[in-house]
Parts: sequence; structure tokens; C-alpha cells
Amino acid sequence: MKEFQLISDIKKNIRFFSDKVIKGIGDDCAILKYDKKTSLLLTSDSLFEDVHFSREYFLPEEIGEKAALVNISDIAAMGGMPFTALLNIGFNKKEKIFYIKKIINGIIKSFEKYKIQLIGGDTIAADKIFISITMLGLVNNKFILQRNGAKPGDIIFTTGNLGDTYAGLKLLIKKKRENISLYEKKLIKKHLTPFIKLKEAQILARSGFLTSCMDISDGVMSDITRIAEESKVGAEIYVENLPVSDETKKVSLAFKENYFDYALYGGEDYELLFTVNKENKIKFLNFIKKHKLNVFEIGRIIKDKCIYKITGGKRIKERYDKVWKHF
Amino acid sequence: MKEFQLISDIKKNIRFFSDKVIKGIGDDCAILKYDKKTSLLLTSDSLFEDVHFSREYFLPEEIGEKAALVNISDIAAMGGMPFTALLNIGFNKKEKIFYIKKIINGIIKSFEKYKIQLIGGDTIAADKIFISITMLGLVNNKFILQRNGAKPGDIIFTTGNLGDTYAGLKLLIKKKRENISLYEKKLIKKHLTPFIKLKEAQILARSGFLTSCMDISDGVMSDITRIAEESKVGAEIYVENLPVSDETKKVSLAFKENYFDYALYGGEDYELLFTVNKENKIKFLNFIKKHKLNVFEIGRIIKDKCIYKITGGKRIKERYDKVWKHF
Repeated sequence: MKEFQLISDIKKNIRFFSDKVIKGIGDDCAILKYDKKTSLLLTSDSLFEDVHFSREYFLPEEIGEKAALVNISDIAAMGGMPFTALLNIGFNKKEKIFYIKKIINGIIKSFEKYKIQLIGGDTIAADKIFISITMLGLVNNKFILQRNGAKPGDIIFTTGNLGDTYAGLKLLIKKKRENISLYEKKLIKKHLTPFIKLKEAQILARSGFLTSCMDISDGVMSDITRIAEESKVGAEIYVENLPVSDETKKVSLAFKENYFDYALYGGEDYELLFTVNKENKIKFLNFIKKHKLNVFEIGRIIKDKCIYKITGGKRIKERYDKVWKHF
Repeated sequence: MKEFQLISDIKKNIRFFSDKVIKGIGDDCAILKYDKKTSLLLTSDSLFEDVHFSREYFLPEEIGEKAALVNISDIAAMGGMPFTALLNIGFNKKEKIFYIKKIINGIIKSFEKYKIQLIGGDTIAADKIFISITMLGLVNNKFILQRNGAKPGDIIFTTGNLGDTYAGLKLLIKKKRENISLYEKKLIKKHLTPFIKLKEAQILARSGFLTSCMDISDGVMSDITRIAEESKVGAEIYVENLPVSDETKKVSLAFKENYFDYALYGGEDYELLFTVNKENKIKFLNFIKKHKLNVFEIGRIIKDKCIYKITGGKRIKERYDKVWKHF
């Protein structure tokens, strides 16, 4: 509960001063006025050693790449294109400088891939490694995707398999990296350097069908709660409809765990989670087919401000402490 | 040397992608295009527990206030006005939440004072407390102050006493907070919550006389080196001309230390450090008098790309490892 309370506390205390601010706290990014056609998106995410990554199973370049990707995902989820960023990197004075350089190379390589220009930041003495990136994106005013537009009856979709990243993490913790099979490698790679659906988000944003959207960073149950909160609605998730890869099923069975739990609570999948008015379902699915995108129907928005999962024909009310367990 | 090398390494590796970026790494802030009259300034600074502050002698509100002020100082030093910010705050899961709330209250209180709207960020699990703030400001295109315009012959000025903050830190480390006298309190307050010369910077920027400007965060010797680097020149600092308060003199004498060393290397004074063409000296000083500002002439820019201090009639070449000792 801590993080949730803290953020809602902060939100309550914010006074609104600037006419340049279109949207503050409460979405993947803040929105600032830019020009007639375009708005500026801003997001800031940090990774801390042994909390968000361990150097036991991350290569330094992968740490950097991941730090870049999680920010790119926030810009993508609002329909924007990232273009510039600031980097704060903290590390111990005793740290080998070539290790830090490798992390920075990972960041810069990812930035180059997405044509993001690093424009500033700071290096800070710290106990352990931390990376704090602030990223800016541009978005067409007509195609901004936000969390707050979901309406009762809307269908909830996602863009790809859920739980892979968590399965990858389990493998990293339990197995040595040199001892892993090919299918396990695929899951691990997804955990280390997730694929960001930037192009897909651009196409979806331009479709005009989405009533809300965000990226799945904390797990589908946690993140649908955020859409519900911002839209002042509730949601039902159809557990058996969640797309889960055969690889993740295999891993969860080996660990004697339920793969739907991986999908529901695993987090860090960075797939898009979005809603569409049910009246537009057929038109939307035709659009999806035409653009060769993959989407999966995984639930619906309800009026009642609660989060439920529907599984084995039962409707189970979600406990908030489970939903907010990521802190 | 580490930080300096790292940053210059990063600078070399940056590719330039965006036509929106006017200036990247190398100043107090990056500059982005905004509209015909205005540019956007961006800066990002982090504080890490037991490196930049200790809770032994900082109240939690002061930690927050300082984190806000160091970023405001960067915007001020470029002639801009801050208007919005993102906050990443990391803390241990075992941390008492009311302590974190007090830090955040300190941040928000400072933001309110300067009419800065908090628009986003993240809370992160970490070992110790860290605060990473990214701040945005707006600046009139005609009045942007940068580090790269100093020319040989220019006079170097600063806006106020140097070394007070370091003297304050010494007192905090050596003395219990309840045992301090009134004059010592003044120094300590300057260390905990430095006064930012935002108004002064606005007036100076509009004077049109400044050829370069930055804020003193690492100490005058370190920071004049940055102006020299960016302007491709050198500098001489007249040690005996440095403004040092009677309070700091008293403290340094009590510790049997040289108060000019406090002023030269202490850092965190957040006074402005700037240059003016010597041809304009009289006009500039008249302007200063008219606007009731305090400035102190403390050196001059030279062609030779070295940093010297002039003291006791001698010219001493500064060692870079001393200048860059802050990391």
C-alpha cells in the first residue's frame, strides 16, 4: 500500500501553477503544451541495483538497455515518439569505471536505436548503482493515449503474451546462465531487454478506437487498477483468456506454480493494455487484421469501482495489497 | 578525474538526432526549442544519502528543500525561470513512511515557493534514500546565459560570499546542532538550504553584459574550469579578492584552516559565477549599482587554456585532480 498512498498523497498536495501543463501525475507520462499540433510527453524511471536488477545475471550493457527501454515504453504507451533524455547515474567510488562505461554504452546504444539524443544529466557518488532516466517524447495532439477514458462496457485488450518476463526472472534466479536451454533463453531475454511495442502503439493510437491505454509494468492486475482509478470505473479480467506462451507454461509447471499467476502479477511485460468501446469491436478487429497486429481480449470495464478476476466460472474480488505488492 | 573522463567520453559518443535540441551536454541545463520567443531548459540532479546529505544533521524537510534548490539553481544560472519538475525518490522498504513524506513535503514546499508544478515521477525501492529531480524552465531566447561565451580579457565576477556553505558543513560534522551559536547557525542554514539567486540571475541576464555564467556548485576553482573548458579559454582567480564572510573566517581559524581554501574548493555556495567584457566594466558596474546588486571581481579570463590562482603575488597553476576532487 505504501507507494499507492504516497503517490495519492502527493497528488492531493500538488497545486497547479503552469498553463503549460496539460496533465500532471496519474499517467505513464506528464503532458506539456508544445505547439499547435504537438504535445510534449515527460516520464522518469529509476533502476536500483539488487532491486530492479542484479549484476549476477545482468550484463552491464543489459542494465543500461533495460533502463532506457522502460522509459521508452512509457512514451510509447501514450502514443508518442521519444526524442531526447537526461541520465543520472550513481555508483560507488570503488566501482570499476569500465563497468559503468559498459552500462552507459548499453543506454546510448538503445537511445541510438530509437533516435533519442542524450542531452544532460549527472554522475553521482552512491552506495550501489542506480540509474535514473528522464525521457521526453512528442505526440500528435489528436492521438494522445491516456489512462482516464475507459467507460463501463469497454473491452480490455493486450498486445501479447503475459508472464514471460516473470518466468525469465525465475530462471535467472534459479539457474546459472550457461545452463539454460534455447526456449528458456527466449524468456530470459524478454526479462533482461524487453521488446517495446512502439510501432504497434503508434498504429493503435492512430486507429482512433482506443478509449484508454498504458503499458504493463507492474502486472495486468495492478495496471488495470490504474486505468480503473484514473477512469473512475472498475474492471473484470478473464483469467483463462490471458495469453501465456508455451515456454512460460513449461517453466511454471516445472516450479509447480500457476502460470496465470505469472501473467496476472508478474509485471515487466511491457505489452500494451488498452480498452475499446464494445460498439466498435468489429471495426477495431478489422483494423487490427488489416495492420497485422496481435491483440487479445482479456476483460471488460465495469461501472462498479472494483477489480475482479473471473476464473473457473467464479468472480473473485481482488485484494488491493496483492495488486500493489510491487513495493 | 573519473567523473570528468566519463562525461567527456559520453559527450564524444552522442549522436545528434533531433532538430529540437539547441544544446545538449555541457552546461547547467540542456536547451530545447520551444516557441519563437522562448526556449525550454532541462536539468537533472540527484542527492544520495550519506553522500550529499546525512540525516544526522539534516531534517527531512531540509533534505527535500535542498534537492529542489540545487535544480532551481541550474535553471537560474542560465537566465531561466523554473516551472515544472519530475521527482524520483528511492528509499528502503523498512523506512518509516512519515519520514519520506516529510522529505516530499520539503520538496513540494520549495516547489510552491518558486511556482514549480510537480508533474510526475516514481517511487523506487532502494537501500538508502535517493532523490532525483528533473526540472524544466523557460527562458527568453534573447537572454540565455551559457558557459561557452567567455573571451580572453573578460572579468570574472561572483554574486556573494564563498565558503560559507563549507564552513556550515564543517560545523555540522564537528558540532551538535543544539550547541551552536547564532553566527554558526547562519552558516549551517546556508549549507542545509542554500539561497538561490534567481532574481539576481534574471536581472543579470537582461543586462546583456554577461559573456558566460554558471552557478557555483563544486567550488569556484572547479566551476571556472568548466567555463574555461566550454569557452576554450583559461582563467586566473585572484584569491585575496574572494568574498569571504567574517563568520567563515572565524570558523576556519577555529579549525586552523585557510578560509580561502573554503572559498576556492568548498562548493555548494550556489552563487553565480560569470564573466563580463572588460570594455563594458564601467557600464556594467553602473547597471549593478542601479539595480542594487552585489558583485565581486575575482579574476580574469586568459587565452592560455590553464587555470591559475594568483595569491601572495604568485601565480600558481591549478592541479586538475584538485579541481575535480568532488567525485
